[in-house]
Amino acid sequence: MDEILTSLPADVAQLKPAQARAHFRAGLRTPTAGWCAGYTQANVIIVPEDYAFEVLLFCQRNPKPCPLLGVLEPGQTAGPLLADGDIRTDIPAYTIYRDGELAGTVGDLNEVWQDDLVTFILGCSFTFETPLQRAGIRVAHIDQGCNVPMYQTTRRCAPAGRISGPLVVSMRPLPADQISDAVRISARYPAVHGAPVHIGNPAALGIEDLSQPDFGDPVEIPADHIPVFWACGVTPQAAVMQSRPPLAFGHAPGHMLITDAHDSDYQIP
Amino acid sequence: MDEILTSLPADVAQLKPAQARAHFRAGLRTPTAGWCAGYTQANVIIVPEDYAFEVLLFCQRNPKPCPLLGVLEPGQTAGPLLADGDIRTDIPAYTIYRDGELAGTVGDLNEVWQDDLVTFILGCSFTFETPLQRAGIRVAHIDQGCNVPMYQTTRRCAPAGRISGPLVVSMRPLPADQISDAVRISARYPAVHGAPVHIGNPAALGIEDLSQPDFGDPVEIPADHIPVFWACGVTPQAAVMQSRPPLAFGHAPGHMLITDAHDSDYQIP
Repeated sequence: MDEILTSLPADVAQLKPAQARAHFRAGLRTPTAGWCAGYTQANVIIVPEDYAFEVLLFCQRNPKPCPLLGVLEPGQTAGPLLADGDIRTDIPAYTIYRDGELAGTVGDLNEVWQDDLVTFILGCSFTFETPLQRAGIRVAHIDQGCNVPMYQTTRRCAPAGRISGPLVVSMRPLPADQISDAVRISARYPAVHGAPVHIGNPAALGIEDLSQPDFGDPVEIPADHIPVFWACGVTPQAAVMQSRPPLAFGHAPGHMLITDAHDSDYQIP
Repeated sequence: MDEILTSLPADVAQLKPAQARAHFRAGLRTPTAGWCAGYTQANVIIVPEDYAFEVLLFCQRNPKPCPLLGVLEPGQTAGPLLADGDIRTDIPAYTIYRDGELAGTVGDLNEVWQDDLVTFILGCSFTFETPLQRAGIRVAHIDQGCNVPMYQTTRRCAPAGRISGPLVVSMRPLPADQISDAVRISARYPAVHGAPVHIGNPAALGIEDLSQPDFGDPVEIPADHIPVFWACGVTPQAAVMQSRPPLAFGHAPGHMLITDAHDSDYQIP
């Protein structure tokens, strides 16, 4: 592992996904923000086959919070999004849930893997934040060096069998004259949450205090900025856990799967 | 039934979907082309729960031929796309498959329904043919009063578990100066097959003779027209049948489910 860590370049943005995954496989635990520029980072949920149809259907019914990029079939550990990869080792850190409760955070799943496990790979908003920035739109949590603030809302997702839960949103404050551009640009990425679900008026989503997010970090909201809310990839993980599967895994927050897909693959005209 | 048939208006295009479904529920068997203008007609596949995850995953992996509009969970007979409807009776005619072989065509499923059956509702190209025509693009099979020609290709779909098969395409011949418009317009309807998968050169798809379609009817191809190929909703039905589920149902060809959704619901900007 030392050898690999020593060989880690100063600029991790230049790594190819397979190189990054090799570092994580060798034991490196680090958040992945800024790694492998231009490649798609993804949320991961892994559940037993008994829950697979319902999780897949939940994603189909709630495509904005649950944008599915790929599924590994029962027991599969590699696939098109991670060629020559291994889903059990190639994420920097994993959460383990038992009966829906967090039971630990680990560096790999080698000890706990089962052959009936089905892996769901879901888009994340990293993919549209780069094009927002390229268009001159400042992303507050990136400027402020913290995680995006996320809020549980009073809006319900469409349930699927045993899987149900509230919509979780992420929030980026924007000046009035950039909101249209942010809508237009993020709408071109429907595979990674797409356009905002709500603009302004947090109370209408049941959010009482923007300074107290349910997940992530609060951001300062500059004067005359309006909170803009996107559907968030925490939604499916929260809903699946509420159904209390005997065993489930996720990526640890901020420690994403870096896939072989290019962000540009998910842009529509 | 007589009463309902007597009350059938001369112009079935003006009926609401619930009214049309009531006629079919009462026993009317008729192709649905031209019914309920502006409302979305759909392909239907019904399989036992044992096959549901794989069929859903096949659709997720092959969204162009298998654009999923909705799924009824095991045993469910109604849902958002057919409010107060009944999937067992509200299609004018159904095909029954046993072990993947056609075992009959019936007017309803009341006698053969099982509580473990899962219904998949998929978009159909009727939805984008109307906007093509509104843009001045002639649709050959409509002009010629026949069914669209469909061809089995040598291109394989992404398999999912036991479900695999070739891509099936529909073909509309177009003049060179209208192909861009046809691409642009159909691309705005990704939920109903979206943009063409192939333009010109049928041999590259393994199609030897356009005058001999595998399904539907041949159309005359006007001089200087180029064959344009769209992914076709026959694809999933053919693939599911190849996996030989003990029991499965579909809509009879041309006898579609008329849903409560509006075609415009599926248009993206």
